[in-house]
Amino acid sequence: MKTYAREIKENDHVDSIFLVKDKTFGITKTGNTYLRLKLVDRTGEMEGRIWSSTEVFNDSFNKNDFVHVRAKAVSFQERLQLNITHVEQVGEDSLDLTDFFPITDKNIDEMFRTLVEISSQVKSPHLRRLLELFWEDELFLKDFKRAPASKQLHHTRLGGLLEHSLSVAQLAIKNCTHYTGLNLDLLITCSILHDIGKVDELSYDRSFDYSDQGRLIGHIILGIEKINEKILQVPDFPKDLSNTLKHLLISHHGQYIWGSPKKPMTLEAVMLHYLDDMDAKIDGIKQFLRTHLPEGSKWSAYHPMLEQFFYVPGSEIKDQIELLEKTGEPGLEGE
Amino acid sequence: MKTYAREIKENDHVDSIFLVKDKTFGITKTGNTYLRLKLVDRTGEMEGRIWSSTEVFNDSFNKNDFVHVRAKAVSFQERLQLNITHVEQVGEDSLDLTDFFPITDKNIDEMFRTLVEISSQVKSPHLRRLLELFWEDELFLKDFKRAPASKQLHHTRLGGLLEHSLSVAQLAIKNCTHYTGLNLDLLITCSILHDIGKVDELSYDRSFDYSDQGRLIGHIILGIEKINEKILQVPDFPKDLSNTLKHLLISHHGQYIWGSPKKPMTLEAVMLHYLDDMDAKIDGIKQFLRTHLPEGSKWSAYHPMLEQFFYVPGSEIKDQIELLEKTGEPGLEGE
Amino acid sequence: MKTYAREIKENDHVDSIFLVKDKTFGITKTGNTYLRLKLVDRTGEMEGRIWSSTEVFNDSFNKNDFVHVRAKAVSFQERLQLNITHVEQVGEDSLDLTDFFPITDKNIDEMFRTLVEISSQVKSPHLRRLLELFWEDELFLKDFKRAPASKQLHHTRLGGLLEHSLSVAQLAIKNCTHYTGLNLDLLITCSILHDIGKVDELSYDRSFDYSDQGRLIGHIILGIEKINEKILQVPDFPKDLSNTLKHLLISHHGQYIWGSPKKPMTLEAVMLHYLDDMDAKIDGIKQFLRTHLPEGSKWSAYHPMLEQFFYVPGSEIKDQIELLEKTGEPGLEGE
Amino acid sequence: MKTYAREIKENDHVDSIFLVKDKTFGITKTGNTYLRLKLVDRTGEMEGRIWSSTEVFNDSFNKNDFVHVRAKAVSFQERLQLNITHVEQVGEDSLDLTDFFPITDKNIDEMFRTLVEISSQVKSPHLRRLLELFWEDELFLKDFKRAPASKQLHHTRLGGLLEHSLSVAQLAIKNCTHYTGLNLDLLITCSILHDIGKVDELSYDRSFDYSDQGRLIGHIILGIEKINEKILQVPDFPKDLSNTLKHLLISHHGQYIWGSPKKPMTLEAVMLHYLDDMDAKIDGIKQFLRTHLPEGSKWSAYHPMLEQFFYVPGSEIKDQIELLEKTGEPGLEGE
Amino acid sequence: MKTYAREIKENDHVDSIFLVKDKTFGITKTGNTYLRLKLVDRTGEMEGRIWSSTEVFNDSFNKNDFVHVRAKAVSFQERLQLNITHVEQVGEDSLDLTDFFPITDKNIDEMFRTLVEISSQVKSPHLRRLLELFWEDELFLKDFKRAPASKQLHHTRLGGLLEHSLSVAQLAIKNCTHYTGLNLDLLITCSILHDIGKVDELSYDRSFDYSDQGRLIGHIILGIEKINEKILQVPDFPKDLSNTLKHLLISHHGQYIWGSPKKPMTLEAVMLHYLDDMDAKIDGIKQFLRTHLPEGSKWSAYHPMLEQFFYVPGSEIKDQIELLEKTGEPGLEGE
Amino acid sequence: MKTYAREIKENDHVDSIFLVKDKTFGITKTGNTYLRLKLVDRTGEMEGRIWSSTEVFNDSFNKNDFVHVRAKAVSFQERLQLNITHVEQVGEDSLDLTDFFPITDKNIDEMFRTLVEISSQVKSPHLRRLLELFWEDELFLKDFKRAPASKQLHHTRLGGLLEHSLSVAQLAIKNCTHYTGLNLDLLITCSILHDIGKVDELSYDRSFDYSDQGRLIGHIILGIEKINEKILQVPDFPKDLSNTLKHLLISHHGQYIWGSPKKPMTLEAVMLHYLDDMDAKIDGIKQFLRTHLPEGSKWSAYHPMLEQFFYVPGSEIKDQIELLEKTGEPGLEGE
Repeated sequence: MKTYAREIKENDHVDSIFLVKDKTFGITKTGNTYLRLKLVDRTGEMEGRIWSSTEVFNDSFNKNDFVHVRAKAVSFQERLQLNITHVEQVGEDSLDLTDFFPITDKNIDEMFRTLVEISSQVKSPHLRRLLELFWEDELFLKDFKRAPASKQLHHTRLGGLLEHSLSVAQLAIKNCTHYTGLNLDLLITCSILHDIGKVDELSYDRSFDYSDQGRLIGHIILGIEKINEKILQVPDFPKDLSNTLKHLLISHHGQYIWGSPKKPMTLEAVMLHYLDDMDAKIDGIKQFLRTHLPEGSKWSAYHPMLEQFFYVPGSEIKDQIELLEKTGEPGLEGE
Repeated sequence: MKTYAREIKENDHVDSIFLVKDKTFGITKTGNTYLRLKLVDRTGEMEGRIWSSTEVFNDSFNKNDFVHVRAKAVSFQERLQLNITHVEQVGEDSLDLTDFFPITDKNIDEMFRTLVEISSQVKSPHLRRLLELFWEDELFLKDFKRAPASKQLHHTRLGGLLEHSLSVAQLAIKNCTHYTGLNLDLLITCSILHDIGKVDELSYDRSFDYSDQGRLIGHIILGIEKINEKILQVPDFPKDLSNTLKHLLISHHGQYIWGSPKKPMTLEAVMLHYLDDMDAKIDGIKQFLRTHLPEGSKWSAYHPMLEQFFYVPGSEIKDQIELLEKTGEPGLEGE
Repeated sequence: MKTYAREIKENDHVDSIFLVKDKTFGITKTGNTYLRLKLVDRTGEMEGRIWSSTEVFNDSFNKNDFVHVRAKAVSFQERLQLNITHVEQVGEDSLDLTDFFPITDKNIDEMFRTLVEISSQVKSPHLRRLLELFWEDELFLKDFKRAPASKQLHHTRLGGLLEHSLSVAQLAIKNCTHYTGLNLDLLITCSILHDIGKVDELSYDRSFDYSDQGRLIGHIILGIEKINEKILQVPDFPKDLSNTLKHLLISHHGQYIWGSPKKPMTLEAVMLHYLDDMDAKIDGIKQFLRTHLPEGSKWSAYHPMLEQFFYVPGSEIKDQIELLEKTGEPGLEGE
Repeated sequence: MKTYAREIKENDHVDSIFLVKDKTFGITKTGNTYLRLKLVDRTGEMEGRIWSSTEVFNDSFNKNDFVHVRAKAVSFQERLQLNITHVEQVGEDSLDLTDFFPITDKNIDEMFRTLVEISSQVKSPHLRRLLELFWEDELFLKDFKRAPASKQLHHTRLGGLLEHSLSVAQLAIKNCTHYTGLNLDLLITCSILHDIGKVDELSYDRSFDYSDQGRLIGHIILGIEKINEKILQVPDFPKDLSNTLKHLLISHHGQYIWGSPKKPMTLEAVMLHYLDDMDAKIDGIKQFLRTHLPEGSKWSAYHPMLEQFFYVPGSEIKDQIELLEKTGEPGLEGE
Repeated sequence: MKTYAREIKENDHVDSIFLVKDKTFGITKTGNTYLRLKLVDRTGEMEGRIWSSTEVFNDSFNKNDFVHVRAKAVSFQERLQLNITHVEQVGEDSLDLTDFFPITDKNIDEMFRTLVEISSQVKSPHLRRLLELFWEDELFLKDFKRAPASKQLHHTRLGGLLEHSLSVAQLAIKNCTHYTGLNLDLLITCSILHDIGKVDELSYDRSFDYSDQGRLIGHIILGIEKINEKILQVPDFPKDLSNTLKHLLISHHGQYIWGSPKKPMTLEAVMLHYLDDMDAKIDGIKQFLRTHLPEGSKWSAYHPMLEQFFYVPGSEIKDQIELLEKTGEPGLEGE
Repeated sequence: MKTYAREIKENDHVDSIFLVKDKTFGITKTGNTYLRLKLVDRTGEMEGRIWSSTEVFNDSFNKNDFVHVRAKAVSFQERLQLNITHVEQVGEDSLDLTDFFPITDKNIDEMFRTLVEISSQVKSPHLRRLLELFWEDELFLKDFKRAPASKQLHHTRLGGLLEHSLSVAQLAIKNCTHYTGLNLDLLITCSILHDIGKVDELSYDRSFDYSDQGRLIGHIILGIEKINEKILQVPDFPKDLSNTLKHLLISHHGQYIWGSPKKPMTLEAVMLHYLDDMDAKIDGIKQFLRTHLPEGSKWSAYHPMLEQFFYVPGSEIKDQIELLEKTGEPGLEGE
């Protein structure tokens, strides 16, 4: 059974699997070489040291491998570390990935089925065919179902991109039908596709970060490229429709300063921007509160990127208890 | 039957009612005095001149009165004007206000009933009582049902504030229940009340403008004052609840730069900000397109306050025909 | 006699009173429980540890209590800490609060008398009565005389709000009479009242911080609420006057971006904004220099909120010696 | 006696002096040449036309000359113009300049004496000598006493720079002595000198505009150059003092974005910035109100540079009547 | 021979070709129908009216046609207009396009040959092949050689895009070789291709404006799409190279606020941004000066988009005479 | 031979020269006094302690002296420090300054000769004479050849100002001649002189920092003062030319927000701004990459002032190897 990093106490004997986030050599004051490991799982990280047979152990696994570790927890310089006696690489198949990465607590296959169901309600044959082409692309789907929606800010978990895309599509149906004069087909299609560039913008095999092309080009243009690929395969896709579709995608951040090369110029683009932003903020704040709301406090820690505090009210307002019950899912800090 | 300003042609004999927006004396080159009137109705404005009995006519009505006019349309300096032979003040009762002001095309009483119905679903006794106190205040209701939601930008029509408040409340129900952990009672209450300060911020008896207190103090603080008045009448209104409620109201613009003295700090405040802003933008753009989309064009005129153009796509997108069918409702330009 | 935190040296025997800012349990490597205290006074803070009878001592006082401590100062991990042998809660009456909090070095009662004297010179009966109502409100006065004017930036000391309000009122008299056409009554009244919302925005019983309503609603709207309460008690308070009065209060930050929901629109509002801002900056810089001007240097440390350095010139400029002579009054860092 | 442009009515016979702001030839439809003049005085401008002897008249005066005109006012295309029968150049000596330019209504010599008196109270021998050197420079004084303080925004009148400099110096004395720790000598000196670059930045012989060097270099650096010139003549002027003095001058706009290459870094620089800005705004708003407050209105026209309206309250606030009584002094619009 | 709009005087008999920019019906006061034309050429525009045979003439040509016009110039309401007696549509072949549109005064074919020559010096086979593919695409070339580089700001003339692309490529060679460590191949390639999206962003058949896709999607993404098309045809184009190449293209505006979805992150991207911006500004200012520098003045008119004036110095600086000698090339105002 | 701080390992015996950046007394737990030194050289810093004869040693050298040190490297609290047994002050002559400060790797005298050569090509006698006056000023030259061009951002090394000035002058020649209509004399002169104020703005004797006048007044105005001094010595220097020259200098930052009191208003000023900024950025990024590009990574660390990452591409792009080969030259962090 998994022993979680956060639960280890001094003098514990640890016998469990961890992900090796870093591996470097050190030298003791007496001149001996040792191996210094950074071991992580879903709940945090722990330093580990191998004092003997370092050469052998060093050759037996690499950074970013999963390893089975046997060790004793000792205190050094006021911090806990693991004195490792045995370490052994293990394959990805023999373990439960959710022990190591935050993952959506919704059912991925179920979410995907709902999304396909929604796609099939699109009446425009061109837009419906466009969506089908994505659902028929197995390589794309593998990533689309695993990717997080953001490195840090919201839906930062495996399956998060799917969760966010579905959520925005559902919001689009609810809000679009509240008004007259908006094109529901277009809104559904773009809600589903607006962030597909994130499949390539982010890397999420061993930690959540940007890929090279993610930083250099960004998910907006990566998404346009993906859509262009598929549109070529739809016969007679109308030019005006593809212009409008792409416009929704590139304007969904709403402002130049937020990285959109165009401001929303159609009613659908305006609505998509608000729904996407709202869904990201609501999830992002909840995700932040799960790890940054001190016990007993109604005030969160300061959110450095949003530059503010958040408040969870008390009296008459019971629903947020649900909010605080959730466990796990540590914020992936960085950058 | 009403003859509309926009329909008058040279040499027409006009016999209809107008609102006097301005009344000044002029002097002809030969030294005679005449009366110069600015006559308006829902469709535009027309200059009128009274050449004889000016003193008598001048005493018989004031600026901002409705008057029955008999006149002939003549061309002067390339523009049409009315040579008025008779003018007579008429009371407000004898006329149809919608001939003179843009007015919501929804049923005001029906909208109000729906709003009251929504209020009654609020479970918190304090919040429900707070809303009831507003519905029991006849003086408030008279204004609340007539006020526009904005001088220029959106819902600029009699009944517009009610229309906007109801719309945001309905959106709140749809969107709040999409998530867990948000307080629906609070969201409904604040959706309904978020703009009540506009009842006093704007003046809308003869034209849509800001009142003195509207410009000096603004609808956010005027709204807080109205709510404080009512809260005093609710026994044991919890302090934490009133803080949270007021916070939603004062933060609903979302940013300091948009006039909110606080940024939204609770999940409900964040959602209210997005829904309010989205509803205002969607209606505002549609309102703008009705008068600023040149015939046959897919591009609107430049929107000076939003600093952009808007686009109404063509192919596969039929719904916006509805959008263009609407008549009347001229934009009330100004400031 | 008080022993100050900043003066304690290794091996000192300490026998003095401190404020308990934090109290938590710790566990030694050998598994014993100890009590960890954060003890503070006006000059800084000191960690203290109780190694025996921890249960008994723990029950005998709480966080935020004042305690009499007997201890020896020892060095641990390069930092001083107190090994406490005895601790005992003491009442607020038996101590000198100025040992624990920064406090104005002016006489509070004298400042208040001056303020009342200035109020009595207001000629408008409505405004003068308004001020009197505040001076008759004992509950309000208790807080008004103690509150600091800001958590961090200026007049961060007990009595600071009174000091700042009086200072701005005196500046208003001097500057208003320099010009013609400004209403002195209005300026005096609003100078005195412009920050009264801070009485409720801040908490200042045990440390200087924001209250819940302070963060959620802010001192501008809290001030408006206080003024509305009193205006209701002044018979026939003119509407135009109350609009103008409130306008000065809500616009005194000068710009949306600085949290004012309105820009100053009257001559008096413009002047109040400048005088308030100048008084806050002059005091704030002097307060910053007292703790952030390295000895022998003409340059202060970097001021992170104002994003600049400050300079204290040398030659021919002797007056600032006074500036540096002041003691005590540590900056209350935070947030 | 002067006939003012604003007072001329149709059919008036005009016999008065004007400034020629523009002079161009026109051709009538029948092929004849005529002279078209733009004639201005303090109250406005009037078009004039010379139909005969155009060659002779054209040679007898130039643009920017003062001319004595005899003419009849006629209406053409709905606007008044002067049919000129005689025109003759007149010297500057024979006329009252205040008929043509807005001029301070304070006594220039008296203001100057007060300023010199204030200078003499400066205790630092170096600073006092510096000021004396300016007062001994006749060429400088001639301009300093005539220059306006701004092309458009405030003190836009002959003598305006002197008026503003004196006003800031007087404010400096009042406000500096309100605090301890500020150097009064430095504040007085810099209050007087802070805008002296405007003597060269602006041109004000025939209209108020920027000079070439004004636009290219600006009054801040022109002022520094003037001060450097004089400092060279003060024996042993301390380096630290001249640094601090120049710092006050170049930072008096307060922010980079307002054209200051440095932010205020000393207490004196901070105070000078506030007092200068406040004095400019108070005078600028009053100047704006004199020509942009519609009769009977409490709201000014929109101020395009400050991007807001201004409000002149009514009840209990009688002093602003003084404000409205002032005559003349038209706003010099432009740019 | 062409008679230019700007040269027509009252009573001239005009017999020349114009472009019909607008065509609408009007009704005279006596009830007759006439045709109102807006006729333009390179030098400006002129109103024309057809009073008889309007039905026949109306059917014989459309808006945006070139027409041969016979007319007399008359004055109406103080403005010149053409009373047209005969009008006849003419084909594009029989006329000199440069009479109607501003066009580069450099030789287009020669510029293109130089650009191809520069391309051939690129050493990377992938990049060189990429460029060749563009030069082999006849459809693309036709537009690339005609397109302006901007609707209004710089190189606003037929051939302007080619001129700007060549200029930036030449600057890249000069500046890149000034430093070590920059990749010249990449810089040359991206200098040439950075604005190719403008071929589709703008329309320039009858006037210079944005196309639908230009406004909705913009030249940055249109350029990426064009490059993707060609890269697909280059075997084994390295992924890292295509990322870097695209990064230069999308970051060449330098800042989010200027429409770049990424900031320049490589040395080459940084340099391209500066050179592109400098070339655009230098040409843009010269283009502006040609029509907005009043004769005899050293100061230009106010440039509304750059929000400043420009200065052309006099003494010792003779070279700019060349600048003023240029004729024609009116600014194409708009938007 | 020099032992560099960065190369010292535990237990090394050190016998080398360092610069004393700080010197303070400490007290051991047993009550003995020791001397704590901060020793620096070009590669970093190292703490040193003198345990005996502290009084004697203390009197023998001061902070900012160079000292010869004999010591043993020991580990204390996980960090290395030097136990010093002997220390002795040494003169500046006996050492190689480049061991202690970053210095340009170009030949300073050669760069200076090139700059003089370029100056001599200026055709305007006034501008050429102005430059000569600087080259004849030995005191100025001594500093000009040593000063860095910036405290942190670019050319942060001895000789850096000369290097940057020469580079911009060479770029000016290349880019100016690419266009017609620009004044090459003016551009060369101002390229050379644009940053001469930095000679006084920075201090660079013992570390790179701002001088008092640098912070208070800044290099733009210090440069203007230097130029004014020299212009006085050039007979008949034309006023228009000196205005234009100064304008280039004060506008070279390009925007108010970047500290320029004027925006560039001439073609030459516009070009100078771009070339200066480009040269600073290219050098600044390369300087940053040398110390902030982790080995094996294509991504730099986050650049806090430019608020971004930088990317060094791999494939097909070999030239940047040169970039990484460079050694030494540590970033001078601070502020």
